[in-house]
Amino acid sequence: MEILSTGDELLRGRSRDTNHARIASLLTERGFEAAGGRIVGDSLPDLLDALRRAVARADAVVVTGGLGPTADDLTRDAAARLLGVPLVEDPASRRRIESLWRRRGVPMPPSNLRQALLPRGAAALRNAAGTAPGIALRSGGTDVFCLPGPPREMEPMLRRWVLPALRRRSPGRPRERTLYASCCGVPESDLADRLADLMARDREVRVGTAVTEGIITVAVHGAGEAARGVGAVHREVLRRLGRDAYAAGRVPLAARLLDLLRERGLTLALAESCTAGLAAARFAETPGASAVLLGGVVAYHDGLKESLLGVPRALLRREGAVSGAVAAAMAAGIRERTGADLAGAVTGVAGPGGGSRRKPVGTVWFAVADRDGSLPVLRRFAGDRTFIRGIASHTLLDLLRRRVEGALPGPPR
Amino acid sequence: MEILSTGDELLRGRSRDTNHARIASLLTERGFEAAGGRIVGDSLPDLLDALRRAVARADAVVVTGGLGPTADDLTRDAAARLLGVPLVEDPASRRRIESLWRRRGVPMPPSNLRQALLPRGAAALRNAAGTAPGIALRSGGTDVFCLPGPPREMEPMLRRWVLPALRRRSPGRPRERTLYASCCGVPESDLADRLADLMARDREVRVGTAVTEGIITVAVHGAGEAARGVGAVHREVLRRLGRDAYAAGRVPLAARLLDLLRERGLTLALAESCTAGLAAARFAETPGASAVLLGGVVAYHDGLKESLLGVPRALLRREGAVSGAVAAAMAAGIRERTGADLAGAVTGVAGPGGGSRRKPVGTVWFAVADRDGSLPVLRRFAGDRTFIRGIASHTLLDLLRRRVEGALPGPPR
Repeated sequence: MEILSTGDELLRGRSRDTNHARIASLLTERGFEAAGGRIVGDSLPDLLDALRRAVARADAVVVTGGLGPTADDLTRDAAARLLGVPLVEDPASRRRIESLWRRRGVPMPPSNLRQALLPRGAAALRNAAGTAPGIALRSGGTDVFCLPGPPREMEPMLRRWVLPALRRRSPGRPRERTLYASCCGVPESDLADRLADLMARDREVRVGTAVTEGIITVAVHGAGEAARGVGAVHREVLRRLGRDAYAAGRVPLAARLLDLLRERGLTLALAESCTAGLAAARFAETPGASAVLLGGVVAYHDGLKESLLGVPRALLRREGAVSGAVAAAMAAGIRERTGADLAGAVTGVAGPGGGSRRKPVGTVWFAVADRDGSLPVLRRFAGDRTFIRGIASHTLLDLLRRRVEGALPGPPR
Repeated sequence: MEILSTGDELLRGRSRDTNHARIASLLTERGFEAAGGRIVGDSLPDLLDALRRAVARADAVVVTGGLGPTADDLTRDAAARLLGVPLVEDPASRRRIESLWRRRGVPMPPSNLRQALLPRGAAALRNAAGTAPGIALRSGGTDVFCLPGPPREMEPMLRRWVLPALRRRSPGRPRERTLYASCCGVPESDLADRLADLMARDREVRVGTAVTEGIITVAVHGAGEAARGVGAVHREVLRRLGRDAYAAGRVPLAARLLDLLRERGLTLALAESCTAGLAAARFAETPGASAVLLGGVVAYHDGLKESLLGVPRALLRREGAVSGAVAAAMAAGIRERTGADLAGAVTGVAGPGGGSRRKPVGTVWFAVADRDGSLPVLRRFAGDRTFIRGIASHTLLDLLRRRVEGALPGPPR
């Protein structure tokens, strides 16, 4: 499988390609072979060359982007050249495009009809979320699927048209299996030490890790005969990770915390300083978050820590805004003012300015408060502002998760 | 130029490659040719094959990843095979690695010395942010630079070693120039209509657009003789965009708003419902945000709109939480409670649940409050929860920007 991501904005780095990662992840989750990727600009010769190379190398190719109505949308032209056929209008696609514009109640720019053109002999793939149909064709023994670039259109079409075709095409392919574990709150090197023997390169079942802002995903993968061994290795991985694993699959930390709180009927509130709303925003990414998250306060300025959270001015003066005592007072304050069962707080030095010898950039205090009191926790992170704010927001959610699971001690009584 | 991004986590879609976009963007900003990209897994034959193809095609190749100490870090092995030479230890790199571990005060795992190995005849590139040195070598007429995968290590090394080498290598290369404009608050299609003649494919100066969560970046690009014309086309683009362009370059919207508020000495507070802190978190991404942003309230639950923002219960009952009256009361409430000069509020239906016929998913009310009062603004977005929350947080910052620039009318007096 090869994936071509097209677009000058990708080639020049103005936008990041997210389609390759999404497609590759959907494929490998379903046991298909991993997919190489290539970024190509909006140039007909470059597109045609990349298509020819991909077709020569792989038994299936997915192209994303370049199906829009404008002059720099060249995928359908490249596909026609690949087959050596002309572009012809697909009447069903034309009717669909015209009816979509009629429903919008605005006149259709004639250029939109370009989207109804297909290489002669190719099939249109219906796009439920946009006007541009996809294109399916076969060149030599290779299946080529051209999908629109916007992920909201691409992904449903991949699921509806491409994955079933791949499955039909290779019923006897060697079985592959991948299982995941998700962790937070430990350094990746520490985790790699615990899994060192399982991660050795010569093992048939492969164990690998990837880390993003403090979230470590462990993948356990086996192909062919080794697929049978994946379950046992995955169980061993989970045993060694213990409470540091927040999920036995690959799920967002916020979704796991939401599930835990929902199961127990607990509500949540957050008080954030250096992360400025990022922890709340991440928690709210999961649908249904409103059943648990009451809300919170972004207390960036010290005056707001006092007025909105009730942190005593004397405490702020004596301990400084970045301190365990202030973090604990913030968590207790937001809990009291919102009536939430559980509350979390974070205050730290995200940089690049604001650091001192005693509290260098990366010093972050957290606190978790429940009916038993409010307990502060100190962490030190190394990185730039974006990284520190990102890992701090994950760490806050993870400390809440550990408290709910009983893996974080409560305040002394 | 070719960019190879290596790693099984990229190949299988567990992580997204950000290095290609970052490198391509740094290159094109400096007028270098756009760079094709390829994603390769941690397999020695695949790496070697990709390296050989890239060397055959391009005059410079950047490889990211695969320089760490573990068994799946294979870039240095592939580079040695490419040259047909053995790996030899670089004494300076070894001393540096050993001294870094001494400073950490923990014993060095012996595997770390793998990072001091270089293909015979290649040069080590010093890495100021990590232990793994980069590798520079020449194969045929092509320069190959191998850099570590973590962006925090990769980017400084690219700036320190690769860009100067590329500049030395091609002093007489054709001049290229790219200028940008950044917009928010208008549909991309509307903007493309205004720029249609400038975006025509046969123009020597190329104008293109890319959109992410409501932020549209317009790029004006010319190479060779056409580079001279870029300035005039860029001025024409800005003239047509008018107040819809928030910057004449490519800058984050939050950074532009921060500048505007700082120039005028104004402070800011935010009240968020459906975005749950995302607007505040984005505003705080820019260093120095703490000089302007006092903070805000995430009022997810209606009770908090009442208790923390002073929205009257009767108003919530009568109008519903997603309404212009409630948005205006939220903005006025956070302004009053924080003492900020300017305040923004957002309340909407992010989905997937919670929509109704009158207020479908994507209905979002905003409000901007200053000393003249609080004015609500309605927008409707189409997309999933993540998209709606993203575009809503950008829209709130853009409405604040327009108000400060006098492009959004104030409340009636």
